[in-house]
Amino acid sequence: MIDTASLPAAPAFALAATALLLKTTLTSVLQVLSRLRAGVFPIPEDARLLRRPVATSEAAFVERCARVWRNDGENLPMFFAVALAYTLLGASADSAASLFGAYVLLRYVHTAVFLAGLQPWRALSYVAGLAVCWSIAVKSLQLALC
Amino acid sequence: MIDTASLPAAPAFALAATALLLKTTLTSVLQVLSRLRAGVFPIPEDARLLRRPVATSEAAFVERCARVWRNDGENLPMFFAVALAYTLLGASADSAASLFGAYVLLRYVHTAVFLAGLQPWRALSYVAGLAVCWSIAVKSLQLALC
Amino acid sequence: MIDTASLPAAPAFALAATALLLKTTLTSVLQVLSRLRAGVFPIPEDARLLRRPVATSEAAFVERCARVWRNDGENLPMFFAVALAYTLLGASADSAASLFGAYVLLRYVHTAVFLAGLQPWRALSYVAGLAVCWSIAVKSLQLALC
Repeated sequence: MIDTASLPAAPAFALAATALLLKTTLTSVLQVLSRLRAGVFPIPEDARLLRRPVATSEAAFVERCARVWRNDGENLPMFFAVALAYTLLGASADSAASLFGAYVLLRYVHTAVFLAGLQPWRALSYVAGLAVCWSIAVKSLQLALC
Repeated sequence: MIDTASLPAAPAFALAATALLLKTTLTSVLQVLSRLRAGVFPIPEDARLLRRPVATSEAAFVERCARVWRNDGENLPMFFAVALAYTLLGASADSAASLFGAYVLLRYVHTAVFLAGLQPWRALSYVAGLAVCWSIAVKSLQLALC
Repeated sequence: MIDTASLPAAPAFALAATALLLKTTLTSVLQVLSRLRAGVFPIPEDARLLRRPVATSEAAFVERCARVWRNDGENLPMFFAVALAYTLLGASADSAASLFGAYVLLRYVHTAVFLAGLQPWRALSYVAGLAVCWSIAVKSLQLALC
């Protein structure tokens, strides 16, 4: 029905969205498994379900997974927004594949080094991902305004 | 202007986005009302405005609303991303209506049982919503790659 | 390649997404600078990198930046979703420019008054931004259903 040639970057966007969904799904699984392993449940009904006392805070590694999730919740929407703007303005398949691919790779690195607690790698991968977002934004504005 | 036949899933996406905006709006209203009712304000200027002492943490039900919001902030962007990829790749109106409708319904259930503190229903509705996201992602990749 | 006349609101969306990326980038920079200035690091590897003891919580202004980020992480995705629905359904360039522009402006005001700790301005700018989202949603539904 749709003339797929009219939005050549859409397949690259679909791949990037799925790759990032895989990453957040893995973070969720890791968080649940490490919460079960630590046996620490700050939400009353979770504690009740697992017959444990209610905890006042999360276990350290569970809290680390939560920080990864929070960082994704704050940053991925900005990527999706600029990537979709770029896609809708007719970005080429090649340019989208390089930029979206670089962002996905950098966010996988960011998650891995955040979970492992490695600095300055977390800061560097964060800034590099942000730089890719800015490249996409600038290229979108060029298509929008020229 | 636009040939609406070219993106047949766009109306279903607009409906899903609006239904989820309604859900997050209701969560905000509930959070504000329960904060006022509890009279507990951890942000200094809020406490000053309502002539209350500054609290060190949120009231329990306000914290529960915050957890619902946080869960939405982490999960809804992933749905929007895969649903938009699917829409841009020419998903049919029927397929989009079923999948997007199922996701919206499951997130309403998730919010209701999270607020009511019911397990294992929260975990089940969460996993079911995630499974719908994966269905959309897989169908997008089929459209993108075939 | 793409007939840009077919999605007349796409340039306005690209501008709004970039303006909001600028806002969240500035929030990140402010958060990092104020964390360095306060010398308070709750994440162990950050404390180690800067040769500081591990803190049990963030400094007050860093926590305020985190609240701004969290509020953006919860609210910007809802704007992106309804704005993209509106764009895909063929919104006019003028209507999109006014609505998206108003939202961006209100979120800049919200961030400024949140950082400055000014109430009731924070609540008012929040509700006004939400009202703009609802206008976009209602207009999308009109395009979708009529």
